Amino acid sequence: MSSHHIVKEKQEPALIIANGEACSEELLGQLLEWSPFIVVLDHAIYRVLELGIKIDVWLGDFDKDHDFEAIRSSQEPLEIVSTPDQDKTDLEKAIDFLIGRGFPAANIVWATGRRADHAITNITNLVRYKDQIRLVLFDDYSKIFPLRGIFEKWYVAGTPISLIPVGEVQGIRTSGLKYNLDHETLTLGHRTGNSNEAEIDGMVRISASQGDLLIMECWDL
Amino acid sequence: MSSHHIVKEKQEPALIIANGEACSEELLGQLLEWSPFIVVLDHAIYRVLELGIKIDVWLGDFDKDHDFEAIRSSQEPLEIVSTPDQDKTDLEKAIDFLIGRGFPAANIVWATGRRADHAITNITNLVRYKDQIRLVLFDDYSKIFPLRGIFEKWYVAGTPISLIPVGEVQGIRTSGLKYNLDHETLTLGHRTGNSNEAEIDGMVRISASQGDLLIMECWDL
Repeated sequence: MSSHHIVKEKQEPALIIANGEACSEELLGQLLEWSPFIVVLDHAIYRVLELGIKIDVWLGDFDKDHDFEAIRSSQEPLEIVSTPDQDKTDLEKAIDFLIGRGFPAANIVWATGRRADHAITNITNLVRYKDQIRLVLFDDYSKIFPLRGIFEKWYVAGTPISLIPVGEVQGIRTSGLKYNLDHETLTLGHRTGNSNEAEIDGMVRISASQGDLLIMECWDL
Repeated sequence: MSSHHIVKEKQEPALIIANGEACSEELLGQLLEWSPFIVVLDHAIYRVLELGIKIDVWLGDFDKDHDFEAIRSSQEPLEIVSTPDQDKTDLEKAIDFLIGRGFPAANIVWATGRRADHAITNITNLVRYKDQIRLVLFDDYSKIFPLRGIFEKWYVAGTPISLIPVGEVQGIRTSGLKYNLDHETLTLGHRTGNSNEAEIDGMVRISASQGDLLIMECWDL
């Protein structure tokens, strides 16, 4: 591994390119701007190669045949990680891999769209890792991340902010939103905080006493 | 309302066209084949009009200006239902509307894709209505419906079937799947039954003792 890679590992979020719907080139370009450490999942490799992106790790269960040597030689140096465990998705394995390598944060793209089972699993699984690594999932319409402790961020008035409970989340308190919550409970499938927004230009604050809450900044194109 | 409409109401599932990503014309064509009673949500009206579909109800909070008379005259007879309630999504209002009209079942399209907050809310809210109306949500990659009582259906071997718990679901029992569950618990964000499949050509059986389970038939294109 080059010294260039060692610097990358400790400074910025890694980038996981999953196997769902591709995002816009603009979004991908923004995430690539600081030369992140890049992990590509299994069959996504061919779409990524077409884009001419230099990747660091190619990870998957490789249940279909690949010309590993051709791909490796086009991406030298490339780490190929075979993860045959059928109890985890490729995205979970990539997150586990980055935690093992000591990354404090990772961005995730191409993890939504297409099959709804994969999309909903990829989105909701983010909460499982919230104490181990900072994860943010991006697509062309959404920025999604789990609540960790107390969330505080400055937003422009009207910015859409949805609170999506993964199961039941208790003791939710917010300030700075159009529809604030005061020690309230949200339950997926029954009562969610979809389509809230920042009330004014200023700080939004979100906390919860128990459960797994996803914060989603979403927009229409 | 014509006698034609009265026949429609009592015989087949209604069709809700929501405001997310459009599905393929092939899927829409299949759902239109039996001339269902059609409800279109708010801003989706323009995309639906372009397709030349005759609709029955146009429902929404109509927070933007529309030329109601022009749209009504192009679709005569058309029922326009204004639903200003901000505590519910347009899709929830459409489902409530169909329950009120006595429909036993409805199919839903254009409810996924685009904004992740809307998609995850639309998908998981299906469980809320499981005792009132039979709902099936379709997109180009997925057929999604809540478990009601005991589910039994004949599948071809290898058909992907995912079990996605909306929160925690207890006492799940399956037969006919590659990875069967025996009185087990699934918890969204922590342990889901993503990417299971029918083991052989034959019956798949799924039941649960407590909680809200979504069954998803998904496929790659």
